[in-house]
Amino acid sequence: MTQHPRTASPQPHAPGRLFLIPSPLWETADCLQMTPEALDIARQLRFFVVEEAKTARRILKIMGHPGPLADLHFSLLNEHTAASELEQRLLPALQGHDLGLLSEAGCPAVADPGAPLVRLAHQKGVPVCPLTGPSSILLGLMASGLEGQRFCFHGYLPIDPAQRHSRLQSLEKCSRQARETQIFIETPYRNQGLLQTLLDILAPSTWLCVAQNLSAPQQWIHTATIQQWNRSPPTLTARTPAIFLFLAG
Amino acid sequence: MTQHPRTASPQPHAPGRLFLIPSPLWETADCLQMTPEALDIARQLRFFVVEEAKTARRILKIMGHPGPLADLHFSLLNEHTAASELEQRLLPALQGHDLGLLSEAGCPAVADPGAPLVRLAHQKGVPVCPLTGPSSILLGLMASGLEGQRFCFHGYLPIDPAQRHSRLQSLEKCSRQARETQIFIETPYRNQGLLQTLLDILAPSTWLCVAQNLSAPQQWIHTATIQQWNRSPPTLTARTPAIFLFLAG
Repeated sequence: MTQHPRTASPQPHAPGRLFLIPSPLWETADCLQMTPEALDIARQLRFFVVEEAKTARRILKIMGHPGPLADLHFSLLNEHTAASELEQRLLPALQGHDLGLLSEAGCPAVADPGAPLVRLAHQKGVPVCPLTGPSSILLGLMASGLEGQRFCFHGYLPIDPAQRHSRLQSLEKCSRQARETQIFIETPYRNQGLLQTLLDILAPSTWLCVAQNLSAPQQWIHTATIQQWNRSPPTLTARTPAIFLFLAG
Repeated sequence: MTQHPRTASPQPHAPGRLFLIPSPLWETADCLQMTPEALDIARQLRFFVVEEAKTARRILKIMGHPGPLADLHFSLLNEHTAASELEQRLLPALQGHDLGLLSEAGCPAVADPGAPLVRLAHQKGVPVCPLTGPSSILLGLMASGLEGQRFCFHGYLPIDPAQRHSRLQSLEKCSRQARETQIFIETPYRNQGLLQTLLDILAPSTWLCVAQNLSAPQQWIHTATIQQWNRSPPTLTARTPAIFLFLAG
């Protein structure tokens, strides 16, 4: 059990802290959607765990890290990282350095590979400090106007059509029984196909929200019933991420 | 279907936009956990939908609204607002004014009464613009190190002990089957009771995270298995909000 001061310096010889650093959802030079606290902390750190070093350098440059970027220490955590390698990733914090887990877009450890490192930090007595930042899941939920008292995020749905249909029917049933919003994402080139499936499968009275390009200038968000959507189904762009939310009506 | 430019001025005679404005989770004069975009927009608005006018004035003052605060227009949306009154709340936007839905703590329309207004905005063709800000649900999930690819927020659990027990058992079963994190909150004075119930009911191998005072200087976050928690159960403070998260091990 550890106190987690966000501002006080860690005690000498104590483990460093693991800061969870969000990053913008779309690339912009002004970071207007980052908080001063997160930027200030990111700029002070020298040790980072990242998905890919090249992307991380670009993000830190946008965040105004004073660098030199070549002197920063990056260790990788992505789908190729074995569980046995996690402890090595945490080493700087165990040796007393503050460490940043930096997301490539959105919030670390949410729909992102960072969570096992955070859990290991708790086991090793490394204080964990999450920082506020953009999340397409949360922005989508806020903007949907659907039930915000109860909601579930499911990541990706099964790709196999029969499995996908039966999954959607079971999620719609849960949504009706518990009055909860169901949230999921799709690979951009499959956005249009998923939308068509939702319009075919869900009940006419079910509320559906589709949000694309959240937080970007070309942001597009719309909520309507399946019956309303079916009157003039839109064409989603196949190159940008979308988030889908529904609530049984 | 409407384009939602975040920055461009709305066209003359078009409806105003509904901005969803988060607010800090704890009262602080510096707003270091608010984004420049959200602060900039909040400071420019003159029409707001809020839970309580007095609290909203205090928050807007902290956000640096140039005022005069007495000249701002507040309409109330809270548990006493009837569905039939919602359209009146949206009136400024329908008349062409940008309108802010301001949360008292965290993100509007998430575990907060604002969602029906947002849904009505979609029905009336009012563009909805969600702004990034602090959310205890998202900060708790990031900091827990539990499964961030799939998670469910349930609000409050039933109070009746038998119902609460059976609910927890069913949530733990779902967590095991779908590998999803279960998230819920409690009224602060019941925090300790809920913790004890979790330690009694959940399987020894289930991972539990408890987070108190998220984003505040006295923030406290810990994740461990039920077996580990039971070795030295902590005393939670009865006056501050906590969030509870678990994942079947």
